[in-house]
Amino acid sequence: MLNLKKKLGLGVSVLAGLGLALSSVTVQDANAAPPTLTDAEFKKASQVYFDRCAGCHGTLRKGATGPDITDTKMLKKRLKKLESVIFNGTNKGMPGWGRTGEMTKEETAQMAKFIQIPAPIPPEVGMADMKKSHKLIVAPDKRPSKPMHDRDVENMMGYVLRDAGKVAVFDGDTKEHTGTVNTGYAVHILRSSASGRYFYSVGRDGKVNMIDLYTKKPKVVAEVKVCLDARSIDVSKYNGPKGNFVDKLAIVGCYWPPQLVIMNGETLEPIKIISTRSMTYDKNEYHPEPRVAAIVASHADSEWVVAIKETGLVWLVDYSDLKNLKIIQIEAERFLHDGGWDASKRYFLVAANMRNQIVAIDTKTKKLAAKFETGNKPHPGRGANWDDPKYGPVTGTTHLGEGKVSVYGSDPEGHPQHAWKVLYTLETAGPGLFVKTHPNSNHVWADNTIAKAKGANKKVCVFKKDDMMAKPNCFTVTNEQSAKTGKVVHFEYNKQGTEVWTSVWDNQGEIIVYDDKTLAEIKRIKAPWLRTPTGEWNVYNTTNDVY
Amino acid sequence: MLNLKKKLGLGVSVLAGLGLALSSVTVQDANAAPPTLTDAEFKKASQVYFDRCAGCHGTLRKGATGPDITDTKMLKKRLKKLESVIFNGTNKGMPGWGRTGEMTKEETAQMAKFIQIPAPIPPEVGMADMKKSHKLIVAPDKRPSKPMHDRDVENMMGYVLRDAGKVAVFDGDTKEHTGTVNTGYAVHILRSSASGRYFYSVGRDGKVNMIDLYTKKPKVVAEVKVCLDARSIDVSKYNGPKGNFVDKLAIVGCYWPPQLVIMNGETLEPIKIISTRSMTYDKNEYHPEPRVAAIVASHADSEWVVAIKETGLVWLVDYSDLKNLKIIQIEAERFLHDGGWDASKRYFLVAANMRNQIVAIDTKTKKLAAKFETGNKPHPGRGANWDDPKYGPVTGTTHLGEGKVSVYGSDPEGHPQHAWKVLYTLETAGPGLFVKTHPNSNHVWADNTIAKAKGANKKVCVFKKDDMMAKPNCFTVTNEQSAKTGKVVHFEYNKQGTEVWTSVWDNQGEIIVYDDKTLAEIKRIKAPWLRTPTGEWNVYNTTNDVY
Repeated sequence: MLNLKKKLGLGVSVLAGLGLALSSVTVQDANAAPPTLTDAEFKKASQVYFDRCAGCHGTLRKGATGPDITDTKMLKKRLKKLESVIFNGTNKGMPGWGRTGEMTKEETAQMAKFIQIPAPIPPEVGMADMKKSHKLIVAPDKRPSKPMHDRDVENMMGYVLRDAGKVAVFDGDTKEHTGTVNTGYAVHILRSSASGRYFYSVGRDGKVNMIDLYTKKPKVVAEVKVCLDARSIDVSKYNGPKGNFVDKLAIVGCYWPPQLVIMNGETLEPIKIISTRSMTYDKNEYHPEPRVAAIVASHADSEWVVAIKETGLVWLVDYSDLKNLKIIQIEAERFLHDGGWDASKRYFLVAANMRNQIVAIDTKTKKLAAKFETGNKPHPGRGANWDDPKYGPVTGTTHLGEGKVSVYGSDPEGHPQHAWKVLYTLETAGPGLFVKTHPNSNHVWADNTIAKAKGANKKVCVFKKDDMMAKPNCFTVTNEQSAKTGKVVHFEYNKQGTEVWTSVWDNQGEIIVYDDKTLAEIKRIKAPWLRTPTGEWNVYNTTNDVY
Repeated sequence: MLNLKKKLGLGVSVLAGLGLALSSVTVQDANAAPPTLTDAEFKKASQVYFDRCAGCHGTLRKGATGPDITDTKMLKKRLKKLESVIFNGTNKGMPGWGRTGEMTKEETAQMAKFIQIPAPIPPEVGMADMKKSHKLIVAPDKRPSKPMHDRDVENMMGYVLRDAGKVAVFDGDTKEHTGTVNTGYAVHILRSSASGRYFYSVGRDGKVNMIDLYTKKPKVVAEVKVCLDARSIDVSKYNGPKGNFVDKLAIVGCYWPPQLVIMNGETLEPIKIISTRSMTYDKNEYHPEPRVAAIVASHADSEWVVAIKETGLVWLVDYSDLKNLKIIQIEAERFLHDGGWDASKRYFLVAANMRNQIVAIDTKTKKLAAKFETGNKPHPGRGANWDDPKYGPVTGTTHLGEGKVSVYGSDPEGHPQHAWKVLYTLETAGPGLFVKTHPNSNHVWADNTIAKAKGANKKVCVFKKDDMMAKPNCFTVTNEQSAKTGKVVHFEYNKQGTEVWTSVWDNQGEIIVYDDKTLAEIKRIKAPWLRTPTGEWNVYNTTNDVY
């Protein structure tokens, strides 16, 4: 231990900040010597990695939607094979960066070497960095005061084109494509401003874009990069005695650095950073990298509800006074991931997926309401809420680990006997990511995106609310063209709750719109630019948390 | 940079947690090669350092009350000289660990080498470590239900014997020494439980002791070690609608690891740890080591007021519901250090010493009230509050950088025109650490502990409240015996406010008690065991925050 330190020649003041005992550093036995890059090559490759790769594979290369590509794993693969994958892509969703012209042969060869070398430690992203990246493209007073078109903004649909680093917008009434804008890479979600006028996107590369829907074509009016790895974004929705915060603030949750960033909601100018480095809720041990998972905005109070993954705490961040910032840290469960509101919007329901549980946070009492098991790795997205004829208000979740929708009671006041327990489970075609419904619909839709059984990930399963026990209608969404590699993911209703939009996630993706009542296909959108659509959000439903 | 990493062979997962870019690590040019120790010797020396040295010199050796002894400085000194200092001590307060029999010649030689080698990275201290160190020596139900003596517990005086790692207790009425207990090393402060029955001490080594004053002789009834470096401790004092928290909880603020630790107030069993790693309030940059400076307990609400030094935030930590913990983070000023309440106990007044400012936190509105300059590095201790005939309620602070007491208005409701500005300044004999008064006294006492002028640090200066502009009575406290190396530090009134106790801080220290009215010496306590007294606390005044 001492020798190591002496070799490094680390000064005390530097070591002091690290917050880890050197004795916990282990020397790894390399199976093979990693390749070498010059300092200049390494620096360039680091930048390319952040720009092109980190979104899917993670800043630390531990994988996210893309696989784990840490150096020890990559060292076991031949360099030529890695080069080929980076250049040509794969049929599982990896873009071919050479084929699309975004990297030269030389660059893909360097990237192959780079991923066989241990990942550089990602730097902090502080206010000075953020301010440098901030671009106010159209100032608020230069923006139109009303829509410059005749479309219904509330029924617009925003579509994430994941690997293209773009967001496409469609008219929910006419199904016309109204425009596509450049965003961060591998955008995880879209959120609507409280007024519904703007879409906010955050890329996995931490880039935030604000998209104005009043302009003739959707237009990015502000941009900022607030982390190196991010998943979640939301806006301030409160309008009450403490003030009117409609469209005033936005918040991003970062994976790296582990922090929250609060921005001006109209310009994306960063205002305040809040570190999430803290102790695990159960063991009370320091965690150096607690990532921010889901964020939702309360409609009833000036609060964001923030799930902190590794520490297992849900934070209620009160944005009404940023200089005297109030945070309530609720002990919940570890490995928090995605979640949304119950139908009454009092309870935040979030998956602790590696604990097989759903956690219910009461945002009125500002305490944990309950936590309970639902199945193998629940993954609800924002979940689905409906009135069950027998049990009253219920909520459903899909699972990563099994083909099952679990339905639990979520109305402890009206139906205390059913609340916070699984009332019944429904079989789907396989493990899935999302479940969705709308108050005006009799249907609950579930995807099977990560199902292994042949053809299952190309299907969706539709249940009837008035007869949930009946066998669901599980049908194939892909057609002959998209059947080979595409998988179906995510749903969104139109504003009226009469039509359902979904995505075929593929290099040449598709968008399909169904009549919710008849399940008839109304529209299938294909286009060369429609690369990897992975999620869709309707303005009205997103603004009002209708799901 | 890459080569460094490869030499170390650090795994990605380890590096990931460090939160610092490797590019910020610089290789230092050693002026001389550091000596070597075997792994076993290094490990032992690390432990000895934590036990004997860290209290004064700091875990990272950057100095506290003891000087900076980081390796680069120590490498410039001869090993023999260092050995001699460690073995024999110095006349400036360094104990002679060989002379007192606590280290052998061989051990002092090893320690001399150890401090020429870079400091090991201090480890985290999590719940598992704390629980291991926890000792419940006398369970609450085995403790006497009333005092086992006829003394007035409220008028007992606790005395820190700094380098001895002990606390001595005196009867404030009779001046008798009632007993001495072993505590952590270099105890910074004592605090009284809300009932007044217990003294709580925290050593700079992070060891917490709970001293029962009901037993015949004061007795340690519980002990726990919650950090490697600590300064502050307080208790829960609230009794109201949210519950009765008298004697229920205690809190320690750590320097390293940077964290707060909440314990059961009757057993010292650790309950919850809160990391302070966060962003600076002004620049919004991540700070890996925000140390916890002063903590005070609100009498009006279930809150601790916690000053976080490096980030410049004051946290209001609500202890009424630890599982749903509410913290309000108030932007204040950087380099917060020591502080206390105003006379009404609504405002927390804390020095931002490197910013030359006092910060006033309004614990009613839970916001910053004001910040203003007072002079070169204010250091009030808890400060001194009195009614000025002209200005109404005022508060005074001494300064580290100049021999001056600054007096400012601290009654914004009754005297808004004078509030939060320096009304007048008073010259002392030199830079000092503490200022003190009592509502029943006409005097304000200031020390000059760090004055450079010959003899000045042996003096105290006493001002008259009804004639503050008059030249103070600055007189020498030391006598012929203690005049050589001793310096005078800190004051405490007896419960009635009629007598003032102070300390001659020396290897052979003294305690002197004055009649506050006449300034006549009532009692001078000397004893072989009275090593390095550095501060004294009266039970009643400490319990009720009378100063």
